[in-house]
Amino acid sequence: MRAVFLICIAIAPCSVLGLWPIPRNLQTGTTLVKLASTFNIKVDIDNPPQDLLDAVSQANTYIQTDKLQRLVVGRGANDSAALGQAPTLPGLTLSLLTSDAPESANCYRSCTAYWDPQRRILSHSPKRWNVCHSDCKFHSRVVQRLDDLRIALAPISIVNDIPAFPYRGFMLDTARNFFPVADIKRTLDAMSWVKINMFHWHVVDSQSFPLDIPAFPEIASKGAYSSSEIYSAADVQDIVSYAGARGIDVLVEIDTPGHTAVIASSHPEHIACSQASPWTDFANEPPAGQLRLASAATTNFTAQLISSIAKTLPSSLFSTGGDELNTNCYAEDAQTQADLAKSGRTLEQALNVFTQATHKSLTDLGKTPVVWEEMVLEHTVTLPKDTVVMVWISSQHASSVAAKNFRIVHAPSDYFYLDCGAGEWLGNNPSGNSWCDPFKTWQKSYTFDPLASLTTAQRSLVLGGQQLLWTEQSSPENVDSIVWPRAASSAEVISLIFWTGATLPDGTARNVASALPRLHDLRYRMVRRGVRAIALQPHFCVLRPGVCDLRS
Amino acid sequence: MRAVFLICIAIAPCSVLGLWPIPRNLQTGTTLVKLASTFNIKVDIDNPPQDLLDAVSQANTYIQTDKLQRLVVGRGANDSAALGQAPTLPGLTLSLLTSDAPESANCYRSCTAYWDPQRRILSHSPKRWNVCHSDCKFHSRVVQRLDDLRIALAPISIVNDIPAFPYRGFMLDTARNFFPVADIKRTLDAMSWVKINMFHWHVVDSQSFPLDIPAFPEIASKGAYSSSEIYSAADVQDIVSYAGARGIDVLVEIDTPGHTAVIASSHPEHIACSQASPWTDFANEPPAGQLRLASAATTNFTAQLISSIAKTLPSSLFSTGGDELNTNCYAEDAQTQADLAKSGRTLEQALNVFTQATHKSLTDLGKTPVVWEEMVLEHTVTLPKDTVVMVWISSQHASSVAAKNFRIVHAPSDYFYLDCGAGEWLGNNPSGNSWCDPFKTWQKSYTFDPLASLTTAQRSLVLGGQQLLWTEQSSPENVDSIVWPRAASSAEVISLIFWTGATLPDGTARNVASALPRLHDLRYRMVRRGVRAIALQPHFCVLRPGVCDLRS
Repeated sequence: MRAVFLICIAIAPCSVLGLWPIPRNLQTGTTLVKLASTFNIKVDIDNPPQDLLDAVSQANTYIQTDKLQRLVVGRGANDSAALGQAPTLPGLTLSLLTSDAPESANCYRSCTAYWDPQRRILSHSPKRWNVCHSDCKFHSRVVQRLDDLRIALAPISIVNDIPAFPYRGFMLDTARNFFPVADIKRTLDAMSWVKINMFHWHVVDSQSFPLDIPAFPEIASKGAYSSSEIYSAADVQDIVSYAGARGIDVLVEIDTPGHTAVIASSHPEHIACSQASPWTDFANEPPAGQLRLASAATTNFTAQLISSIAKTLPSSLFSTGGDELNTNCYAEDAQTQADLAKSGRTLEQALNVFTQATHKSLTDLGKTPVVWEEMVLEHTVTLPKDTVVMVWISSQHASSVAAKNFRIVHAPSDYFYLDCGAGEWLGNNPSGNSWCDPFKTWQKSYTFDPLASLTTAQRSLVLGGQQLLWTEQSSPENVDSIVWPRAASSAEVISLIFWTGATLPDGTARNVASALPRLHDLRYRMVRRGVRAIALQPHFCVLRPGVCDLRS
Repeated sequence: MRAVFLICIAIAPCSVLGLWPIPRNLQTGTTLVKLASTFNIKVDIDNPPQDLLDAVSQANTYIQTDKLQRLVVGRGANDSAALGQAPTLPGLTLSLLTSDAPESANCYRSCTAYWDPQRRILSHSPKRWNVCHSDCKFHSRVVQRLDDLRIALAPISIVNDIPAFPYRGFMLDTARNFFPVADIKRTLDAMSWVKINMFHWHVVDSQSFPLDIPAFPEIASKGAYSSSEIYSAADVQDIVSYAGARGIDVLVEIDTPGHTAVIASSHPEHIACSQASPWTDFANEPPAGQLRLASAATTNFTAQLISSIAKTLPSSLFSTGGDELNTNCYAEDAQTQADLAKSGRTLEQALNVFTQATHKSLTDLGKTPVVWEEMVLEHTVTLPKDTVVMVWISSQHASSVAAKNFRIVHAPSDYFYLDCGAGEWLGNNPSGNSWCDPFKTWQKSYTFDPLASLTTAQRSLVLGGQQLLWTEQSSPENVDSIVWPRAASSAEVISLIFWTGATLPDGTARNVASALPRLHDLRYRMVRRGVRAIALQPHFCVLRPGVCDLRS
């Protein structure tokens, strides 16, 4: 039993289940049970793995420290009499069940994904899922009060708690603005609470290069915002390890050949149109500058760069980026034109050679490349068949990627971009607006259908999805409030599909009205645990599910 | 000399003055001067007032603790040689000048508003302004480094540093979601740094009543979200005192007769259409419920309520609200219809009687009523001539208010609402958007012209303006990042007019391009002082003024 154990601390009344994502199969009873003030979860498993013990310890800590009041005051009054007479539960004991064993009162909620500590990857092979997701039952959701721990509505049965898709991610850009390791760890904590299992780390970009790459320390030393704004090799391992302990894999991206202007500060010979003006002619945002993809030396440099960092990382996935390539940059770069003339290649052919080299540096390490959609939809490069493609420009592009038979991670700007709606960040443009306006509410994200535009045969290509934070207008000061609890939307299957299917346990269709009270619960829990998640509604509405619906 | 002393700690290179708001008359020299590590501001004034000493002490603390690096690294390299040879300034001494005295090297930057500690009000009478704003000169903006305090470009001369309008405010709604006193104090700190001198406290609303009113303790005890979410009388005095020490007056609002649903929890007899359904028929947002304005008992209750709290407050201003009155609520309220029939009044006539009574409770205390624009533009009530009217629905409504000869505070949703752009907060509306979308960027706010729609004769009616945070989607978790540094826009004259006039000290027109570097300085200073102000741009852009302009 090597599973990462994620116990579910739920708070809420009958109609408001605090579980997030909601389990595929969930049944509740009607018996109110209080938790003893000394309530404790124990493990009764031979040779229990350390990660299970750690997770149980963390769960016990949360139960004691969250001190969450029941949110819905109306219900609290209604069942105060019943609570007074409710039996007290002194503790829970976790034990393993064989897959054909009957359900037991003392069991644990299984993990969200199988974490292989030796290979250090997240796996979703059927065999491993079976090991991980043995049928079991966690005896109830837990309701806490300041002075009175309790359980409501026992028994609760959760069986076959298997996510539908293996990739439930969150992306953070640490290049536009820098985020200290502590902020990333806090984000990883919150990710684990909603069972997000992939941290897509967009670590560098044209604006800064805060990553110390072992063979190329000069890139960060000259390209980071400051010497204190660099992730050292030790920092990277610390983050990977911290994530792993929470069932989260780390997918690092070195975006190439675009989004690399900052490399000019240490390697000007590799960058075309470096900080060319006006930037609007050469890049989607300032500053301009792209790797000289037609240069053999630059290609070799890039492959070594990627290899040097990728080999330090346990994940089987690594992203080479590939978005927003500006062809004008190369058209006006004399060296690139000379390189192309010399080789007799077109720019597209040169891009193909470049990409083959960078991807070979990954496949040589046994890793699978991840790219943005342009590499499939706008260019004619040859990619390994198992390449993972992130669809970002529009949710409607998923079908085009699927038509080319590539695996898909949904990251659509029209549903999942957390930075939209904050207005124009470019200077001297007082009437400007957010390029991807409006703000993507959690409700909007929640209505995303990851299978909508795909044929039945194409559905197996969907790896999963993720919400994303690009940080032109974000920093450690607001990362919690702009990400949480919104990024929980995609974690719940973007409407349960990612996690458990298209319908709720009671058979009704997923919908924002029934999700909102659970999301409120989650948000208040996050705040209690030090994550500054934003309020989604007036507290008045939180206390009265449904009363603040548009139609009520 | 009773002025509140606000020293200006500026960071920035030649082209980037860290002063905010920028002074009306500012001249800089060319001599780089470093601050000694023991740099200290001393006061050389006979019998200096305690508030001046306190302000100087705070300024000295900031100089020592901010530890701000110079933001623009390019310039730092350029003038590193000059800095190495720059003379060291051991300290500054503040002394008073008579108005006809020549400028001196040792002087202080004058206060932003006259604070009368005996009357505990902000005054803007010409005489008092003269007392407060004696011509003087603060010797330079201050540039700090982690290890090297310094001054650049001495001497700096700031004369006649008088704001154009007396009311530069910020409004916080503490009813949709609650904000502990500590959050309000931190907000007051930040307000003082940008010379905002009015805290408009929208303390209660339909969702909750977190204000303990001496004669009516039951309203808060039954209407607050919890017993720990109430501002006690001591809390109110603490906030008023803390604000006063920073040159900030506190304008409390008890919104009437609408936005009062919560009063039904303690006084159901006074509330019409209490939580009527569907709320969309009876209110602009849930829950429905308004004071029974046609009832003599309710009118008397409301007047006593307002008087009970107003008399504990030092400000000469108090707001009775008056926005978004829903007539359908009264049309369907049997008691209101009976009250109207009995008195023979129309609803408008009853509203007039109600308003006369609530305003008399203020004028009896020597206070001036403040109302939202509907009380002037949509209703036919008689108001005291000196009533202050807040224009919020549209900036274009200012001229209509001026045409009725009322004083104006600009609070337009199309320029100054800080909550716009965060999407729909009502439940079960996945495709909904922010009602006042898009997000109001600092640039948008900065381009507001408070005199645009007014005749020359009407300009004297403008008291000032304020940015506002309604908190349906805000809480202590994001208050810093949603407010700061954006709310500094209106503080700087909404384009200098509020503070110093329409042009910059160098004679050029106010514009966002020249303001942005100063606003960045301000934002980084705020973060250093514990206010989690949001990043406006990638740090890359902060370091390179102008490079991330749309046209550069």
